[in-house]
Amino acid sequence: MTEPGARRLVILAEGEFAGETSKTARGVLRYGPDPVRAVIDSTLAGRRVGEFMGDDPRYRDVPFVGSLDDALALAEPPDTLLVGIAPAGGKLPASWRGIVSQALRCGLDVVSGLHLFLADDPEFAALAGASGGRLVDLRRPPERMEISSGRRHLPGKQVILTVGTDCALGKMSVALELTDAARRQGVQSVFVPTGQTGMMIAGWGVTIDRVAADFVQGTVEWLVEQAEARGDWIFVEGQGSLDHPAYSSVTVGLIHGATPQAMVMVHQPGRLYRSHWPAYEDPLKPLPAFIRAHETVANLVAPSKVVAIALNTSLYADDSEAREIIAAVSDEVGLPAADPFRFGGDDLFAAIRQQLGGQPA
Amino acid sequence: MTEPGARRLVILAEGEFAGETSKTARGVLRYGPDPVRAVIDSTLAGRRVGEFMGDDPRYRDVPFVGSLDDALALAEPPDTLLVGIAPAGGKLPASWRGIVSQALRCGLDVVSGLHLFLADDPEFAALAGASGGRLVDLRRPPERMEISSGRRHLPGKQVILTVGTDCALGKMSVALELTDAARRQGVQSVFVPTGQTGMMIAGWGVTIDRVAADFVQGTVEWLVEQAEARGDWIFVEGQGSLDHPAYSSVTVGLIHGATPQAMVMVHQPGRLYRSHWPAYEDPLKPLPAFIRAHETVANLVAPSKVVAIALNTSLYADDSEAREIIAAVSDEVGLPAADPFRFGGDDLFAAIRQQLGGQPA
Repeated sequence: MTEPGARRLVILAEGEFAGETSKTARGVLRYGPDPVRAVIDSTLAGRRVGEFMGDDPRYRDVPFVGSLDDALALAEPPDTLLVGIAPAGGKLPASWRGIVSQALRCGLDVVSGLHLFLADDPEFAALAGASGGRLVDLRRPPERMEISSGRRHLPGKQVILTVGTDCALGKMSVALELTDAARRQGVQSVFVPTGQTGMMIAGWGVTIDRVAADFVQGTVEWLVEQAEARGDWIFVEGQGSLDHPAYSSVTVGLIHGATPQAMVMVHQPGRLYRSHWPAYEDPLKPLPAFIRAHETVANLVAPSKVVAIALNTSLYADDSEAREIIAAVSDEVGLPAADPFRFGGDDLFAAIRQQLGGQPA
Repeated sequence: MTEPGARRLVILAEGEFAGETSKTARGVLRYGPDPVRAVIDSTLAGRRVGEFMGDDPRYRDVPFVGSLDDALALAEPPDTLLVGIAPAGGKLPASWRGIVSQALRCGLDVVSGLHLFLADDPEFAALAGASGGRLVDLRRPPERMEISSGRRHLPGKQVILTVGTDCALGKMSVALELTDAARRQGVQSVFVPTGQTGMMIAGWGVTIDRVAADFVQGTVEWLVEQAEARGDWIFVEGQGSLDHPAYSSVTVGLIHGATPQAMVMVHQPGRLYRSHWPAYEDPLKPLPAFIRAHETVANLVAPSKVVAIALNTSLYADDSEAREIIAAVSDEVGLPAADPFRFGGDDLFAAIRQQLGGQPA
């Protein structure tokens, strides 16, 4: 991948930024190394990202624009279009084809994490060939096709996996916040990206949900092996949830492929039903039984326990109310709890370290 | 696929027939609709399949031959070469390339269930193009890429999934024997193939372990939907095991994709350690706790229970000893138990039917 900061991004999120499927756009804005020049969403044109994501100087002034033309008219115009949605099933909305085509005609690179590979589309491939724009399909699986070998972790390595009560509630963000907190506390930490947004942010990894089922654990094992060569505390980005009718097999592949010594359970208080799951009402599981189910499944392959709860308190505007909820959940399940996204990851990392027998920070 | 019986097969199992990786060859010999003219394994040349698989007239007289030339010299020579191994990782042994090439030069079709797609190999593709031989890669996933929709079963349909304590101990055979037993007892039954051998036998299905992880449940759900259109009792071929470090995610995908009302646990008494798993000693789980783990995992998505045990008693030569073991296991776990492979599937099907509240046969 390109060096961090070498790209100037425009993120395509037409009509979607305010909705549930924009987690890729938001993740790249918050955690990505490359400057974002604009977000294309004509329904928000003229407004700024800060209205939706808070006052962080990294992104508060990024403008929404109504078209790619408007983005290209900016000073220091973008050189890369990033497809900033992660819809269930990974299709490209038909109405976005024209924008991707236009970007390629203008010589921009196009980066996508969709299941549909843009480079395999004859029209897109021809346009890219003519203009020199590159098509980067982050979800394309590696050529390597190896089953798990039952590799054990190197001595002294701690592998932590984020798991959760649903999709799209912060498993990637929690792993990123913990990686940063560990680094701040003087620990060599590594974030292991397992999805397209994590790959955009960290510049390596594999989008596990596109790997052939037989090789899911083998690929996760290989990612962890690479991470162990670079640090001592490994934070693996979780995917899906253990009880999700569509994604549970990916979740199990991560649990059994990473064989984490510890899991961090991510939950959004106030979310009662699954997101992205219109089939029927499917209430989220109560935490204590769900924690036990994770430990049962993990222990079928290697010892592991849920050591802490990471809460996404975004449904509660008031900080003191959020802190009350965090304390109540911690009492209910008997584990440390925190919202690393809202209040920073230091407390949660210190608690995890203590649970795993290390010195508190 | 071709009509049953329309092909004359030669099965490639060079050096492997007596070993653990020949389950594809043995499955096709025992259950397949197409006549097998010979098995290529030069280490057994001159001997007959009956020496290894018993006295069934369907296959007892099938000869082992030392080369494809010897098979082609037989009366009614084969017109199709079937790659008859299922090695972990699905690679083609280097020494077999020449035999596949020779078959294609001679105009035979070549059917393979390997992860390596023969049709994508330029040498094989060129040979097939020149001779008119067809390359059939059973493991190639369908174009369809859909996540699970949370579909519910139609009223009156019973969906049964075989699960097991390890790989390669009879999950496919048990599902096939139950399908046959149900049919004999006057029930419209359907076998759902989820692996390459099942596909060779039944002429439809998907090799689930090659499907992209995101679409495993969605594909299984779609197979079950097709089966429900054809019968009332659906027997889904299981894969892997819930505690297998490499294959558990495939197993969970089947459990959560098929949402079976009932599971049949397949176990081989006397097998203490995993097959195909040289990484380290990994003893098989005791049945009662393992049954509970399956029910815990299944119930995360839809109600299900293990209703019977199918035992593979092949490690015990004496029939009366096998029957004692079956009775002992049934007592231990408090569920009906039988060896449908050895003694036929009628008792097991009747027991399952009774457990599910239907009339005993």
